Amino acid sequence: MSKTHIHRIDVHFGDCDPAGIVFFPNFSRWMDESSGAFFLACGVPPWRELLHARGIVGTPLLEIHTRFLKPATYGETIEVHTSIDEWHAKTFRHRHVVRRGPDLLCEGTEVRAFVIRDPDNAERIKAVPIPEDLKALCL
Amino acid sequence: MSKTHIHRIDVHFGDCDPAGIVFFPNFSRWMDESSGAFFLACGVPPWRELLHARGIVGTPLLEIHTRFLKPATYGETIEVHTSIDEWHAKTFRHRHVVRRGPDLLCEGTEVRAFVIRDPDNAERIKAVPIPEDLKALCL
Amino acid sequence: MSKTHIHRIDVHFGDCDPAGIVFFPNFSRWMDESSGAFFLACGVPPWRELLHARGIVGTPLLEIHTRFLKPATYGETIEVHTSIDEWHAKTFRHRHVVRRGPDLLCEGTEVRAFVIRDPDNAERIKAVPIPEDLKALCL
Amino acid sequence: MSKTHIHRIDVHFGDCDPAGIVFFPNFSRWMDESSGAFFLACGVPPWRELLHARGIVGTPLLEIHTRFLKPATYGETIEVHTSIDEWHAKTFRHRHVVRRGPDLLCEGTEVRAFVIRDPDNAERIKAVPIPEDLKALCL
Repeated sequence: MSKTHIHRIDVHFGDCDPAGIVFFPNFSRWMDESSGAFFLACGVPPWRELLHARGIVGTPLLEIHTRFLKPATYGETIEVHTSIDEWHAKTFRHRHVVRRGPDLLCEGTEVRAFVIRDPDNAERIKAVPIPEDLKALCL
Repeated sequence: MSKTHIHRIDVHFGDCDPAGIVFFPNFSRWMDESSGAFFLACGVPPWRELLHARGIVGTPLLEIHTRFLKPATYGETIEVHTSIDEWHAKTFRHRHVVRRGPDLLCEGTEVRAFVIRDPDNAERIKAVPIPEDLKALCL
Repeated sequence: MSKTHIHRIDVHFGDCDPAGIVFFPNFSRWMDESSGAFFLACGVPPWRELLHARGIVGTPLLEIHTRFLKPATYGETIEVHTSIDEWHAKTFRHRHVVRRGPDLLCEGTEVRAFVIRDPDNAERIKAVPIPEDLKALCL
Repeated sequence: MSKTHIHRIDVHFGDCDPAGIVFFPNFSRWMDESSGAFFLACGVPPWRELLHARGIVGTPLLEIHTRFLKPATYGETIEVHTSIDEWHAKTFRHRHVVRRGPDLLCEGTEVRAFVIRDPDNAERIKAVPIPEDLKALCL
């Protein structure tokens, strides 16, 4: 469906909560980082350049779904394996698999859309059809 | 079912990303805050006290599912309406509905378990049956 | 000098680290929130409006200095008392005093400047003289 | 004074604010990460082990001072160069120099202490004299 990119993370003290384990919204943050790293690794320009060239602001989230299987803690290195497993007209779906060596820590999907500033209201954003050239870079 | 608690949040500049909208993991953070506020509002003691009294460390996440319908930005006040819509033997499910006035911004569920330190390995945590007295406080 | 604004914060589980106390960068985040709340309370329009009306992007930091006296933990409510104690040609200095009831938890200063996009390079920002009308609103 | 450790950071979209630059408390977070990485690189065991072996919880902050010279944005890689430039009886001072290639982005100091749980009150922490063996590992 797409290339797979591996985003490596060293878990730090401040990423963990009073139970001593990663505070879970950090997993969402790392999946988002991994989404950005995925596109860069595929050769998609940074959003900053796409904004200037084509008005594309980024790929905000429409839906996330994550299952947490094992906790992680500071001092550990984990990996987010990121791909795109579904392409639709105006959305695509990331799959993120988070591993620590052989252990599966969590896995999740993210549904995202490419968006531009709404031409009728600069305060708002608006989904556009998946740009075919950018999609081709990811396959 | 359960009581419903409303957690009010003022969105700040630093909660938003370069697209000018809330960076989505903050919604997970606010839902987590609202879960904690829900239990306190129901009369459940803080985790710190439950840890000393009964070994309960907290209610970590097993699964989250969130749909994002409209973005929010800084200067806005939003509300997380939190309840528990499913109780199982060792897990329960939160429902969080995030509103800005009449607008539905996002809604999500969280499956959580009450956990204790694993008696066989203090580094690990372990789910326990839902404590009936704590559940009763939430209904 | 200036008016003083009080920003109230409920400390949550996820704001704390494995030592069970607030992870200190959160104090910087709360001081930044309090700076934003200070200006709004003084009647300064949100940065979003100032950007459209006058090109002002915000008031980024030039320097911070914070002393931490007592830790805070989740379940506590703390207050950031924010004022401006120095005005210079192109910078001003915030004073933030963080209290929990009678206890002084930390105190800090922030030197900030009002900035616009650099007309020669939209990727960069540039300090401007303190706008006298905005200053007047704060006194 | 001490060894120097270099902590490398890829700046991500979610680390940046609506002005498109790194939200400054992230620099404090990265300096804290770099402090942890410094001690591990010097051979000091993780806090988790020191807690079990010697009751040491970590090295919380007493004071921070940071000057911000140039902003950073997503897509950039930056480095935190961390050392210890002062040792006192119960405190030490980190120096952190943050660079992006030849550019100096910010620099700061952190005064920290090694702490244990207060034997008279497990909710509180207490500074201890700098452990000479741990100091020796850092020189």
